[in-house]
Amino acid sequence: MVRSLLVIGTGLVGTSVALAARRAGVTVFLADRDATAVRVAESLGAGLTGTPGRPVDLALIAVPPAQVGTVLRDAQRRRSAHSYTDVAGVKGGPERDVLRLAPDPAAYVGGHPMAGRERSGPLAATADLFSGRTWVLTPSERTGAEALRNAGTLAELCGAVPVRLDSREHDALVAVTSHVPHLMASLTAARLRDAPTGTETLVGQGVRDVTRIAAGDPALWADIVRSNAPAVAAVLREVCDDLTRLSAAVDVLAGSGPDGHDSALRTVTDVLARGVAGAVRTRPAGAFARFPVILDREPGALGRLLAAAAPHGVVADRVDAARPGDDELMVHLRVPADAAGAALAELAAAGWNVGRCESAPSPTR
Amino acid sequence: MVRSLLVIGTGLVGTSVALAARRAGVTVFLADRDATAVRVAESLGAGLTGTPGRPVDLALIAVPPAQVGTVLRDAQRRRSAHSYTDVAGVKGGPERDVLRLAPDPAAYVGGHPMAGRERSGPLAATADLFSGRTWVLTPSERTGAEALRNAGTLAELCGAVPVRLDSREHDALVAVTSHVPHLMASLTAARLRDAPTGTETLVGQGVRDVTRIAAGDPALWADIVRSNAPAVAAVLREVCDDLTRLSAAVDVLAGSGPDGHDSALRTVTDVLARGVAGAVRTRPAGAFARFPVILDREPGALGRLLAAAAPHGVVADRVDAARPGDDELMVHLRVPADAAGAALAELAAAGWNVGRCESAPSPTR
Repeated sequence: MVRSLLVIGTGLVGTSVALAARRAGVTVFLADRDATAVRVAESLGAGLTGTPGRPVDLALIAVPPAQVGTVLRDAQRRRSAHSYTDVAGVKGGPERDVLRLAPDPAAYVGGHPMAGRERSGPLAATADLFSGRTWVLTPSERTGAEALRNAGTLAELCGAVPVRLDSREHDALVAVTSHVPHLMASLTAARLRDAPTGTETLVGQGVRDVTRIAAGDPALWADIVRSNAPAVAAVLREVCDDLTRLSAAVDVLAGSGPDGHDSALRTVTDVLARGVAGAVRTRPAGAFARFPVILDREPGALGRLLAAAAPHGVVADRVDAARPGDDELMVHLRVPADAAGAALAELAAAGWNVGRCESAPSPTR
Repeated sequence: MVRSLLVIGTGLVGTSVALAARRAGVTVFLADRDATAVRVAESLGAGLTGTPGRPVDLALIAVPPAQVGTVLRDAQRRRSAHSYTDVAGVKGGPERDVLRLAPDPAAYVGGHPMAGRERSGPLAATADLFSGRTWVLTPSERTGAEALRNAGTLAELCGAVPVRLDSREHDALVAVTSHVPHLMASLTAARLRDAPTGTETLVGQGVRDVTRIAAGDPALWADIVRSNAPAVAAVLREVCDDLTRLSAAVDVLAGSGPDGHDSALRTVTDVLARGVAGAVRTRPAGAFARFPVILDREPGALGRLLAAAAPHGVVADRVDAARPGDDELMVHLRVPADAAGAALAELAAAGWNVGRCESAPSPTR
């Protein structure tokens, strides 16, 4: 049961958790060594400042990774709560600090809600920050059942999906899914900083997406990178090898004369192709069904078919000639599995020449 | 006047232009050496296949950069159109080819609509692809007035904003705003490809954004990189230097013992800070006004203020104590300039303690 919560550290994440917990009916207390930050959180309606009279059910420690151990030690000495968790984006270091410093490591479980914004601080907080997101919990060999249960309950109160991972496993994964991508966004954006005037006119959605997270607080991210340095370093070395090869290949393509062009182009294509394979893994998977529709040669027929099918979430994967040298086209449509029946029935009823439906694995795009 | 258009190359961009031109009432003819692609475009309602009886007003050459020169030469020999433009993402090479090969370089102006999708081919085409986007035109010293005028008209028919640039200037800018960001997304995504199972659970919006464009067609992008190799190589070398320094610094942070930690952390923070400065340049700028509101200490007051101000597009930039050691908070609000008057009036009327309005330059976030 989590009826009372103490949030220590009212930044973006701590204040957002407090707002979500308040919305779920939890009594929330707020603490931060920055008097203004805690006043802002209180003024946002995230809870009340001041220490609770008796231990709360759960204390959420929302401070930088390097401070989790000492903040937990002090909180446990004050008997602030029955159980404790944190939100640091790195879990190995804090876990080691806790096992070394905390009076009662059994009452603590590491946590990491996988959500954030470019803006930091309580002003950017929102109760919806975690809805539908993964909230990683990293029990140590000392973690007790109550701490794990209460942290899981808080994650669910915030609308997140709790997932258990070993802390080392978590740190290796976030290096590749979060920390290195952030550094890559920063490296890309750093080039834009030095680009000539007029650059803005040529900025499209692509580069805006690639560099969006680079707007994050440098001090905060430097601390995250330092706290996960071994895992980040391992991934960065691999990226560095790839980039060194790529850069050399593009130098060859930039040179006069065709010497080495073919192998240089293969190197560039290889990086691009491996990127496609990786990008696919970032897409939310879903169950899809596929079915073909045969179209007579008639201008606009495919346009009308796609317009008719769109309401069911149908998209066209590819089109080929129905038979070699034939005028008819075969369109391969993809539709969310649960909508397939209705889509087929409606299209057939409307007179489209619909083929047999095959269910299929998740799309590659 | 552009009353008739011939699209040579019915891929994503060519077919999207055709759909937009059709919607604007232009008579559109479609050609592609791939018989299925052109049939698909026709079936989408993008126009009619087959060659027009007499020269059209404008021919749009939507083929890879390396083929623009020869395709233009052949089209001019057939007297296909009065003027010609293309959509290649690189302009210097095609311009050189055109000046070398084309019977009538005066009838051609280079073009580059700054829009795309991860999916390629006519099936991914949409008439809205260019609305609000920049469409670069790169007249050479030979380009005539009619070709420039017609290409600008087509851009506007597609809802895009024509911008004139020198072809070399264009290529240097797209290297840093498009080509290198694409390669950085690919390098980041390539690491995900090799990451262990379970990675998907820890994928958030951040890495999804960074890697989205990496899903683009490798062959197409390899051709773009090759065609703009000198400009891309120059930027990649700078990124490579940055990354090499960064990687070495993180190796130091990963090492045991504090030796060199401070300067390594400075190196990491420097890259992150330059990234913030660059990311700011990718945000659409706007005119904003700022004004302060003073709040009594009362839990939830700021929450109610932001809820009341939100309909006017008001966001809170920062909050400080109104006076040192004081309980009152001063909130600094930012609002789109044109909404400032209404927002101030409504908040004052509702009894909020609103301070004087200062207009301000574009926000940094």
